[in-house]
Formats: sequence, C-alpha cells, structure tokens
Amino acid sequence: MHLTSFTDYGLRTLMYLAACPEEMSSVKEISEHYGISRNHLVKVVHRLSQLGYIKTLKGKGGGIQIVNGTEKLRLGDLITQLEPNMTVVECFNPETNTCNISGTCNLKHYLFESTKSFTDTMNKYTLADAVSSGFDIES
Amino acid sequence: MHLTSFTDYGLRTLMYLAACPEEMSSVKEISEHYGISRNHLVKVVHRLSQLGYIKTLKGKGGGIQIVNGTEKLRLGDLITQLEPNMTVVECFNPETNTCNISGTCNLKHYLFESTKSFTDTMNKYTLADAVSSGFDIES
Repeated sequence: MHLTSFTDYGLRTLMYLAACPEEMSSVKEISEHYGISRNHLVKVVHRLSQLGYIKTLKGKGGGIQIVNGTEKLRLGDLITQLEPNMTVVECFNPETNTCNISGTCNLKHYLFESTKSFTDTMNKYTLADAVSSGFDIES
Repeated sequence: MHLTSFTDYGLRTLMYLAACPEEMSSVKEISEHYGISRNHLVKVVHRLSQLGYIKTLKGKGGGIQIVNGTEKLRLGDLITQLEPNMTVVECFNPETNTCNISGTCNLKHYLFESTKSFTDTMNKYTLADAVSSGFDIES
C-alpha cells in the first residue's frame, strides 16, 4: 500500500516551504535538497499552485512561497487532493472497473471505510505539526 | 493510494474459494471468472498456499481449495501479508530511503499511525464477512 511519488513530493515540498514561510524558494533548491527529479517537481509545484497553497513570483528575486494559512492545512485533506485517485483497488472507479463481483462484494465497502480511517487519522495533523520537530533546510 | 494487484487478486481468489469451500477449483476458472491474467494468478495462488490458506491437490479431480478456518481470517492481517511491503512512502523502508529529512520528519509517524488505522478497520471484518452478501461464482 503506498502513496504516489507525486503526493510524497507534494508533502515534502510544502514541508520545505512551511519551514521558511518568509522566504522565496526555488524548484531547483528543493529538488537538490531532496535529491528528486526537477521535472517531476515542476508538475507537483504547478498542482500545489492550482490548489492555492503556494504562490509564484517570476523574475529576479522570484520563486515560490507558501501561502499564509497553509500551515493549518490538514494532512488527510492534502493527500486526498494530491493523489490522482484514491482507488485502493480497481473497483473503486466504476469507469475502469472490470471486476464482475462488485455488485455483491462487501470488500469494497470495507476498503472505503478503511481508507476513510486512514485519511481521518492523517487529518488529526496539520502541515505545521509535520515540521514542528525542526526542519533544517540547510542540511 | 492503492493496493497492488497482487493483493487485490489474492483477496478475490480467497473470496472465490470461500464461496465454494467444499469444491476443488482451478486457477483457470478463477482467472476466467475475474478476467485476470492466469500467469499473475499462479503467483498469487502460490503465495496463498505458502501462507497456508489454500491447499492444492494434483492430478485428476485435483485443484485448489480453501483451508478450513480461513474464513475467519481478518482482512487487515491478510492485506499486510499479501502486500509486498506496506511502505506508504519511501522513507518507510530504511534500506531504500533517500529522503534526508527523515530524522526530524513527523510525517512518517503520522503515516504509520494512519496505515495502522487502515489495517485495524479492515481487521473488523473477516473473509466470511466479505462474501456474506452472496457470491455467485457462476456469474
């Protein structure tokens, strides 16, 4: 069971930006900090911008910065927004489902309930909580 | 967030066998029933046999059959056994982790807790529950 790297990188990017909310950061420095693909990160940053969690400023002295208030964002809500889909198994998506027992299968109901337990637990915590133990962006 | 198809097929195979516990079934009929790869299913069946949940009988009249008592199997335990790993994000696995903030990052603790919420909720249900609404293997 895993989250996509897209979501993983989205969480890490917001944590990075939350650790230096007053500063302009760049995709380059974040990708180098984590040792992850810059191209991949560009797409993640675009999505975070679409969601209104980061703002971008072009030109000299520009960069990306966390939007004020985003530190209160609940992590379960964030994961739900970043994951391309929360289809734990294929029958969660009626458009692509090929399983012919989904009509009488209880399993999907249990999986829905369990997925909600996962996001509910994540929603006990905010982005601010995630970086509250210290986060050294110089490391 | 999703489970591997390996786990998905493992769950479906056990549900199929639990619906006809007195009969011998075959990989061929299960793969045709669900419209899934026979080669993939062979590996799933091998794993279920290793785990002691199904037994195989070779030769004429042979096949695979659920082991008595498996219907009481809790679904969270089953998922934990079938998933190649429960590494929700890469830092869950110290051997492959490349994230350099894992030392001070709270996120992984929240993800561990949330994953446990997921499996705990699944553990409220057994394999018998999953097929209790009827399961027409002729469909």
